[in-house]
Amino acid sequence: MAKKKPIILVTNDDGITAPGIAALVKAVQSLGEVVVVAPDSPQSGMGHAITVAEPLRLDPVSIFKGITCFQTSGTPADCVKLAVSRVLHRKPDLVVSGINHGSNSSINVIYSGTMSAAVEATIEGIPSAGFSLTEFSHGADMEHASKVARLVAKKILESSLPKGTLLNVNIPCLPYKDLKGIRICRQAHAKWEEKFDERTDPHGRKYYWLVGEFVNYDEGVDTDEWALANGYVSIVPVHYDLTAHHSIGYLNEWKLNV
Amino acid sequence: MAKKKPIILVTNDDGITAPGIAALVKAVQSLGEVVVVAPDSPQSGMGHAITVAEPLRLDPVSIFKGITCFQTSGTPADCVKLAVSRVLHRKPDLVVSGINHGSNSSINVIYSGTMSAAVEATIEGIPSAGFSLTEFSHGADMEHASKVARLVAKKILESSLPKGTLLNVNIPCLPYKDLKGIRICRQAHAKWEEKFDERTDPHGRKYYWLVGEFVNYDEGVDTDEWALANGYVSIVPVHYDLTAHHSIGYLNEWKLNV
Repeated sequence: MAKKKPIILVTNDDGITAPGIAALVKAVQSLGEVVVVAPDSPQSGMGHAITVAEPLRLDPVSIFKGITCFQTSGTPADCVKLAVSRVLHRKPDLVVSGINHGSNSSINVIYSGTMSAAVEATIEGIPSAGFSLTEFSHGADMEHASKVARLVAKKILESSLPKGTLLNVNIPCLPYKDLKGIRICRQAHAKWEEKFDERTDPHGRKYYWLVGEFVNYDEGVDTDEWALANGYVSIVPVHYDLTAHHSIGYLNEWKLNV
Repeated sequence: MAKKKPIILVTNDDGITAPGIAALVKAVQSLGEVVVVAPDSPQSGMGHAITVAEPLRLDPVSIFKGITCFQTSGTPADCVKLAVSRVLHRKPDLVVSGINHGSNSSINVIYSGTMSAAVEATIEGIPSAGFSLTEFSHGADMEHASKVARLVAKKILESSLPKGTLLNVNIPCLPYKDLKGIRICRQAHAKWEEKFDERTDPHGRKYYWLVGEFVNYDEGVDTDEWALANGYVSIVPVHYDLTAHHSIGYLNEWKLNV
């Protein structure tokens, strides 16, 4: 008896028409039965948002030939929930999110809609990974990122992942032949140094655009930033236990009481 | 010479007119110079969203007597960025977020706008804490939650916090005399079991409301869920390194290469 094909859910945060999701569909379609449920518009910077105060739309669309495809009015995390509950009526075997147009390395994981979809899948007990190319342009060549995504997705299907762990995969924007390899990394300690660009609207009222510069404070060669800067694909295993376990002892010494 | 008063930034995700933020302002106003920068409308479930695709509004408002107060069109994380960059023009000594109407214990930390503001502050190097009352009603008595918030905020100002660590403080909705104490906890392993309530709009098109039930899979007496269920205030130290360090070894065994 032939082994049943795995069901692979593909989502993203740049929206269902972004080139990155097309590249990801192409990457994984030979690995199983692919279903796409993705936002109907770009959702970058949405963090782990879910939609509780508004109802959601979920509509079938024809975008990828021969592939079941739905667009939603929700966030990437909503897409995973809707896919499981209203499209598949079961948990898929793998969720892949991306390929994001722009890096989700280091602190970006916190702000990333791409990664929030993958985190949500893992909360649901589904193996998952988010993929990002370190280049914002929608014209960027996704060919090699697609190859990397296929390699990682295939390995997850074969070997699974430790319970509660997902992968944050970032791919430097280099020709495939110039990629040095793949490194398992930790999240670098870095942040956005931000400012707001102040403007005045035609009615004389001020408004502000968030602009920022990414600054890496971490010199570790075991970080994702090091890997990317040196031509490697970075894979950071991610979990959603935010407890700072190492600080519990210190706080117990406070002996707080009501 | 008198010691300079600390500057305390207050924000939230339920919006600047929510009773919870009034309770938090009241809680901390004797501890320093309070400045409020909060969303102009409710932002629950926003996770760690930031606003990059739209400009932001930032307007002074008169809500709390004698306290500098701004409302923004942004998310809670935006509020912290705007406060530092455009209101205070320096980092405050403490950021407090809340008091949220509803629990942010366990996995809720991932979806919480209240906590995202506190996380953003910590990314900026500012000591911070998020406070939540385990009761959604805007009519809930915030008196004892306010007392707990004051106690914790005072302690942070006195003793500071380990670098990169913030506090997720959840307060059970009980009369103050029935609170058993305060426990330092880890985030419980729990999740929302979700479904979507399907409806049809007046034009015959379907839409979906997210509804869910919180399920705790964790029997540990060191968890926030245990503390809250047993009449204690829970304090979970939180950090923003999402690396699953314990999975790095396993992934290295994969020997992935391009």
